[in-house]
Amino acid sequence: MSDILRRGRLSEIPDDEVLKYISSMETDRWIFQADILVDMAHTIMLEEQEIIHEEECTRILEALLKIKEDGIESLSHDYEDIHISLESKLIDMVGEDIGGKMHSGRSRNDEIATCLRIYLRDEITGIMSELVNLRTVLLKIASYNVDTVMPGFTHLQHAQPTTFAHHLVAHAESLSRDFDRLFDAFKRINMCPLGSAAFASTGFNLNRTRTQELLGFDGLIENSMDAVSTRDFLVESASVLSNLMINLSRMAEEIIIWSSPEFNFVELGDKYASTSSIMPQKKNPDTAELIRGKTGSSIGSLTSLLSICKALPMSYNRDLQEANPSIVNTVNITSSSVKIMSGMFEDMNINSEVMLSRSKEGFTTATELADTLVRVTGIPFRTAHQIIGAIAKEPGTPTIEKIDNVSLDVLGKKLSDIGLTEGLVQEALDPVLNIKKRDVIGGPAPDEMLRCINNCKSKLENDEKKLEKVNSNIGSSIDNLFELVDGCIKSK
Amino acid sequence: MSDILRRGRLSEIPDDEVLKYISSMETDRWIFQADILVDMAHTIMLEEQEIIHEEECTRILEALLKIKEDGIESLSHDYEDIHISLESKLIDMVGEDIGGKMHSGRSRNDEIATCLRIYLRDEITGIMSELVNLRTVLLKIASYNVDTVMPGFTHLQHAQPTTFAHHLVAHAESLSRDFDRLFDAFKRINMCPLGSAAFASTGFNLNRTRTQELLGFDGLIENSMDAVSTRDFLVESASVLSNLMINLSRMAEEIIIWSSPEFNFVELGDKYASTSSIMPQKKNPDTAELIRGKTGSSIGSLTSLLSICKALPMSYNRDLQEANPSIVNTVNITSSSVKIMSGMFEDMNINSEVMLSRSKEGFTTATELADTLVRVTGIPFRTAHQIIGAIAKEPGTPTIEKIDNVSLDVLGKKLSDIGLTEGLVQEALDPVLNIKKRDVIGGPAPDEMLRCINNCKSKLENDEKKLEKVNSNIGSSIDNLFELVDGCIKSK
Amino acid sequence: MSDILRRGRLSEIPDDEVLKYISSMETDRWIFQADILVDMAHTIMLEEQEIIHEEECTRILEALLKIKEDGIESLSHDYEDIHISLESKLIDMVGEDIGGKMHSGRSRNDEIATCLRIYLRDEITGIMSELVNLRTVLLKIASYNVDTVMPGFTHLQHAQPTTFAHHLVAHAESLSRDFDRLFDAFKRINMCPLGSAAFASTGFNLNRTRTQELLGFDGLIENSMDAVSTRDFLVESASVLSNLMINLSRMAEEIIIWSSPEFNFVELGDKYASTSSIMPQKKNPDTAELIRGKTGSSIGSLTSLLSICKALPMSYNRDLQEANPSIVNTVNITSSSVKIMSGMFEDMNINSEVMLSRSKEGFTTATELADTLVRVTGIPFRTAHQIIGAIAKEPGTPTIEKIDNVSLDVLGKKLSDIGLTEGLVQEALDPVLNIKKRDVIGGPAPDEMLRCINNCKSKLENDEKKLEKVNSNIGSSIDNLFELVDGCIKSK
Amino acid sequence: MSDILRRGRLSEIPDDEVLKYISSMETDRWIFQADILVDMAHTIMLEEQEIIHEEECTRILEALLKIKEDGIESLSHDYEDIHISLESKLIDMVGEDIGGKMHSGRSRNDEIATCLRIYLRDEITGIMSELVNLRTVLLKIASYNVDTVMPGFTHLQHAQPTTFAHHLVAHAESLSRDFDRLFDAFKRINMCPLGSAAFASTGFNLNRTRTQELLGFDGLIENSMDAVSTRDFLVESASVLSNLMINLSRMAEEIIIWSSPEFNFVELGDKYASTSSIMPQKKNPDTAELIRGKTGSSIGSLTSLLSICKALPMSYNRDLQEANPSIVNTVNITSSSVKIMSGMFEDMNINSEVMLSRSKEGFTTATELADTLVRVTGIPFRTAHQIIGAIAKEPGTPTIEKIDNVSLDVLGKKLSDIGLTEGLVQEALDPVLNIKKRDVIGGPAPDEMLRCINNCKSKLENDEKKLEKVNSNIGSSIDNLFELVDGCIKSK
Repeated sequence: MSDILRRGRLSEIPDDEVLKYISSMETDRWIFQADILVDMAHTIMLEEQEIIHEEECTRILEALLKIKEDGIESLSHDYEDIHISLESKLIDMVGEDIGGKMHSGRSRNDEIATCLRIYLRDEITGIMSELVNLRTVLLKIASYNVDTVMPGFTHLQHAQPTTFAHHLVAHAESLSRDFDRLFDAFKRINMCPLGSAAFASTGFNLNRTRTQELLGFDGLIENSMDAVSTRDFLVESASVLSNLMINLSRMAEEIIIWSSPEFNFVELGDKYASTSSIMPQKKNPDTAELIRGKTGSSIGSLTSLLSICKALPMSYNRDLQEANPSIVNTVNITSSSVKIMSGMFEDMNINSEVMLSRSKEGFTTATELADTLVRVTGIPFRTAHQIIGAIAKEPGTPTIEKIDNVSLDVLGKKLSDIGLTEGLVQEALDPVLNIKKRDVIGGPAPDEMLRCINNCKSKLENDEKKLEKVNSNIGSSIDNLFELVDGCIKSK
Repeated sequence: MSDILRRGRLSEIPDDEVLKYISSMETDRWIFQADILVDMAHTIMLEEQEIIHEEECTRILEALLKIKEDGIESLSHDYEDIHISLESKLIDMVGEDIGGKMHSGRSRNDEIATCLRIYLRDEITGIMSELVNLRTVLLKIASYNVDTVMPGFTHLQHAQPTTFAHHLVAHAESLSRDFDRLFDAFKRINMCPLGSAAFASTGFNLNRTRTQELLGFDGLIENSMDAVSTRDFLVESASVLSNLMINLSRMAEEIIIWSSPEFNFVELGDKYASTSSIMPQKKNPDTAELIRGKTGSSIGSLTSLLSICKALPMSYNRDLQEANPSIVNTVNITSSSVKIMSGMFEDMNINSEVMLSRSKEGFTTATELADTLVRVTGIPFRTAHQIIGAIAKEPGTPTIEKIDNVSLDVLGKKLSDIGLTEGLVQEALDPVLNIKKRDVIGGPAPDEMLRCINNCKSKLENDEKKLEKVNSNIGSSIDNLFELVDGCIKSK
Repeated sequence: MSDILRRGRLSEIPDDEVLKYISSMETDRWIFQADILVDMAHTIMLEEQEIIHEEECTRILEALLKIKEDGIESLSHDYEDIHISLESKLIDMVGEDIGGKMHSGRSRNDEIATCLRIYLRDEITGIMSELVNLRTVLLKIASYNVDTVMPGFTHLQHAQPTTFAHHLVAHAESLSRDFDRLFDAFKRINMCPLGSAAFASTGFNLNRTRTQELLGFDGLIENSMDAVSTRDFLVESASVLSNLMINLSRMAEEIIIWSSPEFNFVELGDKYASTSSIMPQKKNPDTAELIRGKTGSSIGSLTSLLSICKALPMSYNRDLQEANPSIVNTVNITSSSVKIMSGMFEDMNINSEVMLSRSKEGFTTATELADTLVRVTGIPFRTAHQIIGAIAKEPGTPTIEKIDNVSLDVLGKKLSDIGLTEGLVQEALDPVLNIKKRDVIGGPAPDEMLRCINNCKSKLENDEKKLEKVNSNIGSSIDNLFELVDGCIKSK
Repeated sequence: MSDILRRGRLSEIPDDEVLKYISSMETDRWIFQADILVDMAHTIMLEEQEIIHEEECTRILEALLKIKEDGIESLSHDYEDIHISLESKLIDMVGEDIGGKMHSGRSRNDEIATCLRIYLRDEITGIMSELVNLRTVLLKIASYNVDTVMPGFTHLQHAQPTTFAHHLVAHAESLSRDFDRLFDAFKRINMCPLGSAAFASTGFNLNRTRTQELLGFDGLIENSMDAVSTRDFLVESASVLSNLMINLSRMAEEIIIWSSPEFNFVELGDKYASTSSIMPQKKNPDTAELIRGKTGSSIGSLTSLLSICKALPMSYNRDLQEANPSIVNTVNITSSSVKIMSGMFEDMNINSEVMLSRSKEGFTTATELADTLVRVTGIPFRTAHQIIGAIAKEPGTPTIEKIDNVSLDVLGKKLSDIGLTEGLVQEALDPVLNIKKRDVIGGPAPDEMLRCINNCKSKLENDEKKLEKVNSNIGSSIDNLFELVDGCIKSK
């Protein structure tokens, strides 16, 4: 093997240590398929623009197909990246006279930017699809649980009673916004930098819109310097994915807390739990803990990306290579975590009776009782808050008598004299009745929750359609590309 | 002053140290104006829903107007946050009988979420406006510099000649995507959580769509638990702003390097430079360095936000208070940095002659020379790359003779025998001719650059219109709110 | 006011917007006291080296004393930083003929580096002192609770019984390492960069060891370029403080979980809790949540520092100014959080009965039961683990009979035939006996815990002595400096 | 294969997706060697404490030796981690009757903590050794360049002349503090958690000090809950390594800038440069760019670690597994970057003539000229600063005449009347003379620099000795361990 890059300008080759340091082969395997596509599209366009001959085009495409079939393992790892490894392999196969023409009017700078965008759009659409699935699971479980009463928490303290459906829909709504952010990010990812060459475009008569179309991109990153230099699409993607991971980590935290024997609200399926190497009774929510932990890794990967990109002057700098492992890491973490979360929820046992019985403890109906005082007697909310606060300090269940005693102190009169009755008090203290009353938009009242769930499902169906359209556009472009390749080879 | 919150449930008040620790008053001044708006809209709706009387409504609105006029300095800092400080002030002014009713059906949890969204939408639209201005400045300077030749860099090495316009448009295009991201983020910010109360909505018969409309929001965050718990809009905003700061830091880095005596490509206006306390000859690009440094702070603020939000269970937790300084910090940094960058560019002297003369050094036309070999003689690009690489190792200007010598070695024949002439070689070596040839879409050829600049200007005008529409929607809602307040007071 | 810096080289002054952007006055108030000390020490040394006259020295020192008394509020905020503001004030007071000499042989570059180190050493020793207090509190509570049995957790699942003392000592030991890290960081902070001037030292005949000594530093940062450029001491300090905050956040998380009604292991004092604006029954562990949230901010501040310092070439760059708010933020967060944590623990009610009763649930003694099988019957631990694991799947308390049934399946024999008795089984199931057996070094057995607590106390006393020595060294240097100043003024 | 862990408590095993999600095998290969050591030491101690029989001990040790020889590839990847994979392999080899006893009195929780500490201490001492080498290289080059004059920079502007030696020693001093931090971190890493079992120690009569000694640890992490839960040593190590990477990134940034054609201060060896796939003339400082980029990754890895560890309650949580890839990443980045930096400096060509000639441009001697005015004429420094600042605004070299003109304006008198001469002016303007005068401690004057270099070399030699001692302690412990293993096997 002779190094097709270095043989001209540089008289020494890097030793193993340096090669290992500068090599991106480890991460490049994620873009192997994309790189083949880019090579094919560029080659076909070169032929269409009469920059290379038909015969040369055919020979290159045949070899590329063969390399694709043989897989990345057939490439040498002695080169610094996959682009040059692939080009060297090609030259080995068809000779420099032909293979040496593929890189005309192109640079690794626009090549890698294009590969990254193809890789990322495929992963992002994949994650959108997983997200559709997770939302479906959550909404399904929610629809069974509009009457499952549980204590609602603020500050991890019992606050007011709510339902399991209300809780799950809160998460589903968050994930719906994550979908929207991914969709917005996708628009900016799926733009084509190819044809920008090193950064200054080229004197070859390239047709940039043609390669864009062949590769299924929605448009061009026009300015050739911008096209090879920007990694804002990596930063945006990693940001959106981290926001999604934050949401998953919040669900994971709840699963961990709910699985504790003190809470005992849910029990994971065995498949998603693990035991201890020493404590044989243990059933640990490890998958949920790992989702939480991996959220930390996704935060770190985003920090890496930001810190790497900061203050880089135009145009390409080798630092950008170091951005790639971080985006791959974030993508892998998020993609698998969304999947695991779906499975975990599907396989989870919900202890409704425990939740219901807990919701009766801790005076979670205090707010409703205060509201009742306001509505029935017309005293200001602040005063009602004070009265009920004093009641809360004492042990035992609130009664009309206790309330009267406090109100005498605070207001100089008994509330029972201005309309409050023991019946109204006890009604306010019942968590189920309590929830029924909370029927403003987005509240936990069962009917309102059913409306919300249907609402979410409509949005979800719409999202699925948008995603299908995106996938079908890309799919038919790539199908077309392979048909052209086949046509070219057969016509030989 | 008696503490309207704590007097019920808790028997001890925090000492100064604890109060200082838990107080958010320092950051809350950024939401003072928003909090008044929220109080007004909520009060009007309470009256419309007949939860409070018209007279009570009027008295509360009068007091709120007065507090607005007196400013935040009139509020006590002895409370833990602005909401309770403001409510206490109100109660001092109109009595608990009336003032104590304002908080009916509401919690600080939905209140702060609403305030944050109002604050942030106003800041984000402000930054979008500054960004429009910066893009305008860059495109204007670019339009004067389509013929200003400069060396283009990769790896901070001379790579190929380009123009100053090409360079500036690269930045303008990046900033255009930042605008799009801000616009997308805005859609998700300008949604109303009000009416969610603590997280479980309320038994009061609130009209959530009415307060949404009064406050100029585009829709509701429906699920009441989601509404008070999510801070994904802060994470998204900080992410988008950090991406923008990264772009500014890259421009700043170039300004710093270009201002060095070795480069001497540009000179900052005195206003944007500073001197030394000890070295009287110094003229330092401090503003650019601070933009670069503040980018680091914006990365840190985003990290804070992510790390704070990670693994928080539903619903409100006090940790969320600690998220607010980070978003305020990021907003302030970005807003001022965009402004400073505009001024710096407007006030910058461009040393075109230095750039031109530097572009002739370092054999930046090597790629074009290799491409010429390919086009004229039909040899593969890889072979041409090898020949020119060997030429590059030698000192002095390339000539047809030198090329022939190398090609004899490499190919066994002289390129002058297959079409290459000294004239073609010298043409390839001229940076100005070189640039003219690079007229594929997005390339630096002057005509193509003019087309690109016009393209960017159209997009810019369109963005301005979208922004105006957004601003006008919010503006007319808020105008309407104040008219209602005035009407209410006058009708008294 | 005329700008003593800019009047020479630059013909335009920054407008308000630019000034606000580049000004560090907001953060500089943290170094006001330090700056006065640096000015005094430098002035005295200038006089001793005969660079300024005795009379000039006296006049400058008098003015500096006056400025110190008047406080930072007496300085103009129209300058870009405190150094130049202070020097301008001095010149206003004593005239340029005298005041203009103070900055001889010095630059703001070595001045700010010296001020930061004085500020930071004082804060770090302060935090070490607070940490000594927190460790004292934890060890005191631990010493009362060596017999307070509680369930020990892994994965937030009951794992094995332990004691509250064991738990608290775990935290105390972590904090002891934090102390050690702070002490190690201190060694590198308390080194003097003064005399390095802009970065290249100076031709004035300065005596660097004299100012080092006057300011209580332990040594010099010798190389003058290193001295003004490095901020590794900020990164190290912020790292150490973040590590400490992580430890506090872990304690805070436990307090939050333990305060939940489901756990109910502890109850915070009212002073450290807050209530709700709407839910009058709530008692929320807000201080603990804020410690947890502020840990996120400290992580972000560290990220800022790292990202700001990355890839800065020698020597001083203005980016470094932007590092200062981050270190101040981290210091303030940590210092107050350690204090709050001490108070929270001192004021906490421990529900020992709840802990004890919970420790009997969830088969936390399974490991000991498995170990008993191993010790009594000689079967391998892995086999015992399998047998007890199968027992754990069934409801109810383990008995010798159940164990025999399983062991028949697994081993083909009853364990009661090879030594196991119901007595031994029941002994293993008792959490108190269980803990007594765990008396290897660092185990929860009460006697061992008492030994550990004494051990920790010895280390703590030793740490206090080391800290006292450090404080006394600095204190006596500063006392001496002020005596020299007084002597100088009186001798007039 | 049957799962020795799960067969008891859990009835379902994870499918491939879940297993892949929870598996740590990928990262665990970094601790394979350490795990064997831990198993050996634990086994020997179990035998010494008579918990297992001599024969059992021998059989286990033999099998462990065999596994060590076969390497990690011989282990099954179907288990979730290396500990259980290794134990399963052992049981396959020697039967459960014997192999099932190795894990007595131990848990994966103390096992992994011990393995991590062994792995990390070996890597940290390795990096210290590489750092000694890098400092040696820098000091060697510095010693040849005490007379190599170059422009010193602040704000990337020429500030004052200095020498290449002064510059290199600044970096060497920073790296010397990095060494000290690593050494301090090492003290806290090399402490033994083994014997803590799951977190509550064990009822087996273990001898913790014996395993500590056998594994070459300097002491115990006593508290068993602390021992398995804390990852502060990972956070500290990653912090220290990031601080070191920051220093390397600053050197890398300078190399990149210095390699630009505009600067041309240095030229990298071909081995450390790369060329372009399209621009054959390019010679790019890729290795330096990658060091800069990898610094971003190390910042991100630290952020991951901090974010993962934040708010984890006691004791072990599965999140901690996710910390391991981050520390491995940081360690690999730092270790290779230090090595590459040494090679890059050794192989670098320094263009002294360019540096010298550049140091004469840009009036870098202005400070010295101002200082001369102060020393000769007795005017205040501030006034001299103003005069020279005005001179700097004008083109051309300063002369006594120009100075007199300005001083007439500013002071109303000529400085030539109070001692200044053209000779003194020209002397001040000579960079070489300038540097000679700057002989205060740490200044660039050649004699002072030679003293500093010798000083650094003494510190370096001392550091080498400390490192040797550490390595020798660990080495002899491990040698002893293997001797015991061999002895045990042979005595069979």
